[in-house]
Amino acid sequence: MTELSAAEGARPREHRRRAHNNRAAAGGGFTQSPRRTITRNFPAMQIVSADQLETLHLASLKVLEEIGMDFLLPEARERLKAAGAEVTGERVRMPRQMVEKALSTAPQRFTFHARNPENSIEVGGNQMFFGPVSSAPNCSDLDHGRRSGNHADYRKFLKLVQTFNCMRFLGGYPVEPIDLHPSIRHLEALRDAATLTDKPFHGYSLGRERICDAIEIARIARGIDRETLEREPSLFTIVNTNSPLKLDNPMLQGIIEMSSANQIVCVTPFTLAGAMAPVTMAGAIVQQNAEALAGLVMTQTVRAGAPFIYGGFTSNVDMKSGAPAFGTPEYMKSCIVGGQLARRYNLPYRTSNTCAANAVDAQAAYESVFSLWGLTMGGGNMIMHGAGWMEGGLVASFEKFVLDCDLIQMVMEFLQPLDTGSDALGIDAMREVGPGGHFFGCAHTLARYSDAFYAPMISDWRNYQQWEAAGAPEAKHKANRVWKEALAAYEQPPMDAAISEELDAFVARRKEEGGAPTDF
Amino acid sequence: MTELSAAEGARPREHRRRAHNNRAAAGGGFTQSPRRTITRNFPAMQIVSADQLETLHLASLKVLEEIGMDFLLPEARERLKAAGAEVTGERVRMPRQMVEKALSTAPQRFTFHARNPENSIEVGGNQMFFGPVSSAPNCSDLDHGRRSGNHADYRKFLKLVQTFNCMRFLGGYPVEPIDLHPSIRHLEALRDAATLTDKPFHGYSLGRERICDAIEIARIARGIDRETLEREPSLFTIVNTNSPLKLDNPMLQGIIEMSSANQIVCVTPFTLAGAMAPVTMAGAIVQQNAEALAGLVMTQTVRAGAPFIYGGFTSNVDMKSGAPAFGTPEYMKSCIVGGQLARRYNLPYRTSNTCAANAVDAQAAYESVFSLWGLTMGGGNMIMHGAGWMEGGLVASFEKFVLDCDLIQMVMEFLQPLDTGSDALGIDAMREVGPGGHFFGCAHTLARYSDAFYAPMISDWRNYQQWEAAGAPEAKHKANRVWKEALAAYEQPPMDAAISEELDAFVARRKEEGGAPTDF
Repeated sequence: MTELSAAEGARPREHRRRAHNNRAAAGGGFTQSPRRTITRNFPAMQIVSADQLETLHLASLKVLEEIGMDFLLPEARERLKAAGAEVTGERVRMPRQMVEKALSTAPQRFTFHARNPENSIEVGGNQMFFGPVSSAPNCSDLDHGRRSGNHADYRKFLKLVQTFNCMRFLGGYPVEPIDLHPSIRHLEALRDAATLTDKPFHGYSLGRERICDAIEIARIARGIDRETLEREPSLFTIVNTNSPLKLDNPMLQGIIEMSSANQIVCVTPFTLAGAMAPVTMAGAIVQQNAEALAGLVMTQTVRAGAPFIYGGFTSNVDMKSGAPAFGTPEYMKSCIVGGQLARRYNLPYRTSNTCAANAVDAQAAYESVFSLWGLTMGGGNMIMHGAGWMEGGLVASFEKFVLDCDLIQMVMEFLQPLDTGSDALGIDAMREVGPGGHFFGCAHTLARYSDAFYAPMISDWRNYQQWEAAGAPEAKHKANRVWKEALAAYEQPPMDAAISEELDAFVARRKEEGGAPTDF
Repeated sequence: MTELSAAEGARPREHRRRAHNNRAAAGGGFTQSPRRTITRNFPAMQIVSADQLETLHLASLKVLEEIGMDFLLPEARERLKAAGAEVTGERVRMPRQMVEKALSTAPQRFTFHARNPENSIEVGGNQMFFGPVSSAPNCSDLDHGRRSGNHADYRKFLKLVQTFNCMRFLGGYPVEPIDLHPSIRHLEALRDAATLTDKPFHGYSLGRERICDAIEIARIARGIDRETLEREPSLFTIVNTNSPLKLDNPMLQGIIEMSSANQIVCVTPFTLAGAMAPVTMAGAIVQQNAEALAGLVMTQTVRAGAPFIYGGFTSNVDMKSGAPAFGTPEYMKSCIVGGQLARRYNLPYRTSNTCAANAVDAQAAYESVFSLWGLTMGGGNMIMHGAGWMEGGLVASFEKFVLDCDLIQMVMEFLQPLDTGSDALGIDAMREVGPGGHFFGCAHTLARYSDAFYAPMISDWRNYQQWEAAGAPEAKHKANRVWKEALAAYEQPPMDAAISEELDAFVARRKEEGGAPTDF
């Protein structure tokens, strides 16, 4: 599969049409946009001035210097103390020089390597990559309703991620396969991730054993030695701080193991304004920023130059109930200001596509598109939960998955540069058609119509009478058909027999050893 | 009702909360955002470079010079010929100097006066105003389904426009009251508009008689004389060109009457790529631009300095069926490039919130939010069809109306500047709560929580169990309740008895005279 860069978007139509038709034919009923690297060709939005941004930054430094954060892992505290932090009990206060030093060593961009080199991604700069929903404890579809996460559904989601071009990496488990025993779940699940897909993937920071197993699986899957692995980041982990202002043992073990091995750490505070952060959006952002910077310092203290992604997940709550709210105006603002901060720091930026809806209805759609608006205009590089997220993260929905992929494809199309070459200006077509004429049949149109516009997977543009006669289907009903077609189009990527055997052997050995501890 | 400007967004919370509660109390069950002037505080998005913009501009000038447009009204052709155009039969070709001259006399901004001065709006610059769906031949709601437009439903929509703070002007009839005879429909409908609302409104350019009646109704409603009316634009009209490259008699009569009287003309080409315009987006935009500029020249030729709004309505079609598509990536791009052109010309910009969905489902929502994304980032000033539009404009939906108002209120909230004052930074709150603590009960939160965040009218943030127990309502069901609550909150604005009598007398006289012709 060849990758079309944004720059190639203007290449002659004949080539694009052939490529499109080839993909359509290969997929049977299922069609999708070709794979593209999404490049933001416009300046990211700024909703606070440079002065205001400095105010936020300085406030975060003050929080780290004066209030500090609790680091529960003794080894983490020792490392930070040796690097200049003031440690009192579990409380770590960082002088601003530690932050400035960390910002000077963290890389601006890096390659996240996949076992299929064509699927490696460049993290940072102006590029945008989407991954699926992560860590949902439940999943759902219209046929069988809402149910607990399980291995079979987990594998289906992996297949969807592999099939969709717009899904460029795997986050945590789209849905948690809770029928796999927690001690060995990560071994089975990551073997599946490495086997059913050939895209870059994620390991959970849930204790030293789990993250080390994940690193090893990533190494085996790529068929490389440890030295190469340390040169070529091949795994990422999301480290959520325990907002407010705390980092626990499993997460810190994750940072230490991953950064030591030069693998990618994305520190993402989970700062819901009014709950785990101040009720003001500026306050929640200051706290998010402080926690992310503290995480950055941790990674760079472990290994200067270790790849780091600045993560944000700041939203508001429903003040009547305390329930998390997503895809809100407040969420959008935090996406954008977070991006301004990440770019001030020259760090790659992670955000998310989110919603709080219980059904794949109008609310799910508007909350998600507002999220996409915020994260796109905010300059997000790695977009988590891009497809499938429902109920504030409690459910991975099959219908929502394909709906979100459609929305992502629309965003990708929106970001394609506008062709203003002389052919595209269409003056000769206007001459040919003339005032009062019609463009349907003119040469200019006939040469271009078949792939002139984005063809949605789900939108129904039939007139009312046709639509009603077809049973008045809603978007979620169409989505229900599309995910099944996409699953049917799944092709398992090839894997070297030797690698496959080594992977199986590793999993078998680790299982025999009892896997990982299940108490923290 | 006091107007909160964006600059006041940072004023002390106590004042805002009191204002909010007052409105809530007045409305019974119905609550809404306070009225605000929406100001775009960030640079509008640019997706084509200055060079590319010039290319588009020059191409439009070429179209007008070499191909020209058909002007069906002889009087219009005579005026343009006298102003320097080359006229051959119905074909009018304009040398570029005519366009440049018109651009030099058209005002950059102007006041659109309402009969209630508090409701007058400033058109142009960085301000954004939304109006409701216009001209739908049908309407619908969940209870009574889809039906032809009628006077009773038309009046209900007027009441909703009056009730919602985010609705700042009336476009054409939200739904066409086709049970009113076409010869006198405009008289009844505009009397209703002037009486049931006190917001600025619109007259259709459907022949000289209708637009002159509309101008007169606007004058009477404001209780002013003709001289004042000509100084203070008090009516607007949308003039749709007959794309491609044609302007018909009723529309040209509309321009002549309105511009002569110094009333507002918004020329909006309806350029669906592949149908009434070239299939390339750049070509469709070049044609839209040419037609809008030709309309501008017409207005300024009639009266230099007459207020003009640059309108765009460029989208794509479903190439399989030819059906119009809305809220698409192509639509978004045209919103933004149209804005770049309007700002190049220093003209106020009109765009629209659109969708092509048949049900108030996920598709209706994502197409509308994508439209809002495009028109907001594109710098639209007057936003038509802001609330209620369904089925590509064929239906005005009551549920979609309130859903769209909720979305508009979210956009308004998103555009509110972020407060980064020292209180908002929340450092003392973080100190008080400390690592591992909780912000729900701290002083900083308690002082702010009740209006800290936007409270949606429709979004359901309950957890799954609560939501399911409540009957698993979808967004459209909640919307169904909200529009009824909003209607119940309607208060008819006062009108001087003398004005009311004069209005009735005018309508009675014109009806007796037979109203307006019904053949064109």
